[in-house]
Amino acid sequence: MYISETKIRVRYGETDQMGYLYYGNYALYYEVGRSEAFRSLGISYRDLEAAGIMMPVVELQVQYFRPAYYDDLITVRTTIKEMPIGSKIVFHSALFNESGKLLNTGVTTLVFYNIQEKQKVIIPNHIEQCLAPFFLNQQDSK
Amino acid sequence: MYISETKIRVRYGETDQMGYLYYGNYALYYEVGRSEAFRSLGISYRDLEAAGIMMPVVELQVQYFRPAYYDDLITVRTTIKEMPIGSKIVFHSALFNESGKLLNTGVTTLVFYNIQEKQKVIIPNHIEQCLAPFFLNQQDSK
Amino acid sequence: MYISETKIRVRYGETDQMGYLYYGNYALYYEVGRSEAFRSLGISYRDLEAAGIMMPVVELQVQYFRPAYYDDLITVRTTIKEMPIGSKIVFHSALFNESGKLLNTGVTTLVFYNIQEKQKVIIPNHIEQCLAPFFLNQQDSK
Amino acid sequence: MYISETKIRVRYGETDQMGYLYYGNYALYYEVGRSEAFRSLGISYRDLEAAGIMMPVVELQVQYFRPAYYDDLITVRTTIKEMPIGSKIVFHSALFNESGKLLNTGVTTLVFYNIQEKQKVIIPNHIEQCLAPFFLNQQDSK
Repeated sequence: MYISETKIRVRYGETDQMGYLYYGNYALYYEVGRSEAFRSLGISYRDLEAAGIMMPVVELQVQYFRPAYYDDLITVRTTIKEMPIGSKIVFHSALFNESGKLLNTGVTTLVFYNIQEKQKVIIPNHIEQCLAPFFLNQQDSK
Repeated sequence: MYISETKIRVRYGETDQMGYLYYGNYALYYEVGRSEAFRSLGISYRDLEAAGIMMPVVELQVQYFRPAYYDDLITVRTTIKEMPIGSKIVFHSALFNESGKLLNTGVTTLVFYNIQEKQKVIIPNHIEQCLAPFFLNQQDSK
Repeated sequence: MYISETKIRVRYGETDQMGYLYYGNYALYYEVGRSEAFRSLGISYRDLEAAGIMMPVVELQVQYFRPAYYDDLITVRTTIKEMPIGSKIVFHSALFNESGKLLNTGVTTLVFYNIQEKQKVIIPNHIEQCLAPFFLNQQDSK
Repeated sequence: MYISETKIRVRYGETDQMGYLYYGNYALYYEVGRSEAFRSLGISYRDLEAAGIMMPVVELQVQYFRPAYYDDLITVRTTIKEMPIGSKIVFHSALFNESGKLLNTGVTTLVFYNIQEKQKVIIPNHIEQCLAPFFLNQQDSK
């Protein structure tokens, strides 16, 4: 299992007239969380894409428990629970406010996609190697 | 069952550097679809909120099959499959491109929420009455 | 002079907690207006970009007179006041609500930019030819 | 003069298919810069609004010199050049990339607006007092 945390402050333009963080903007927070999870593993998504592999999202599931408000400093906890197999990778996101209350959870599934060949590919070697140390038990048990 | 369709053209600012409609922006398209579904039923979400009832989203599920591109004219088909019971209402959204290909499906669950009392309420009478004619069989079978 | 009009309904996710269309989202409305102005001239911005010319914005000026609200049906009037000279083209946008009140004006300046050569280029011939009939007097007077 | 700096990393969803930070999204960066400038002065915009004063933008001027790209860590420098007089306050924003290159400048003019009375008001006392020490010369010269 790999866990990473980052903080995001809710922008005024991200709220809606309910005074809540707009339900569609959570996707941006998950994206930042995934990107920082990769960065802390030593993986740059920017470089990955420059090297010809992009990672489109194929599935998103969100549950909204409590609203996030303007100027709240949100903790985004991003977890990779299982070693990716094949071309898919799943990220679990959980958002907490400053009091530690769980606001929202999101699960995003992405695929590795070769831009030039226009098709899905299996997880690149260097990413697998960065992740492997965090999933030793999982691999042992297979 | 109630079905409504509306069209949305993909804006440049809604794409990302993959050249795809950004995965978080589909939520806006579903919102427009829901709003137009209500309008075609004779319900104004704006008036509903002015009358003290707002409808926060509590759950969102998205599946991305094919990308939407800049300037594509997307058909958003919004379906209410079941008569809402209690405080929840579920909208099914399906997005098609100009060739009729299915790009994306989304399911959003919203609740009716009394702004002043700060709590969920059951579906307002006038909305139930607008919807009822489309769910006669469902009601008969209860 | 060339004038084009299109309509945009304010989305919930485009408002902020003031209940106003967020000040940064007007840029999207201008973009839609420019794109529709081109379309009504027989020019496709999508095709232009596919042919290797993109049009980044180099300047934006906005004046906010009255707020736009959720669900307002906004008329976006886009005007090209002068025949573009060199690599620049200027669009004037004016937004009106359903009562015809002027809400907002924006002026965007864009340049024609060759993607492969990575440099500004003069206005492509076919665009100049589409625009020319609307600026006969201006050309005469030169 | 009062100067404040904050850093913002460009999100994937903020880029467009040119691969640039979308021209409309700079407004969000200025907003974050203004908000942090206030915070570092001991002013909370959230509290200000809770106390009945909001600050709508009445004018925006942007110049785009160089694009910002995905994952760039942008420095947003926010400057209040003159002591606000009456109900207006002007913020100058300058954005720099990691090499220190100037990418973009923006000037936003906002007004203090009493929500309940629905009209502009002069700058609140406590904000004037936070700002005053940075404009001693300006005040002397009056």
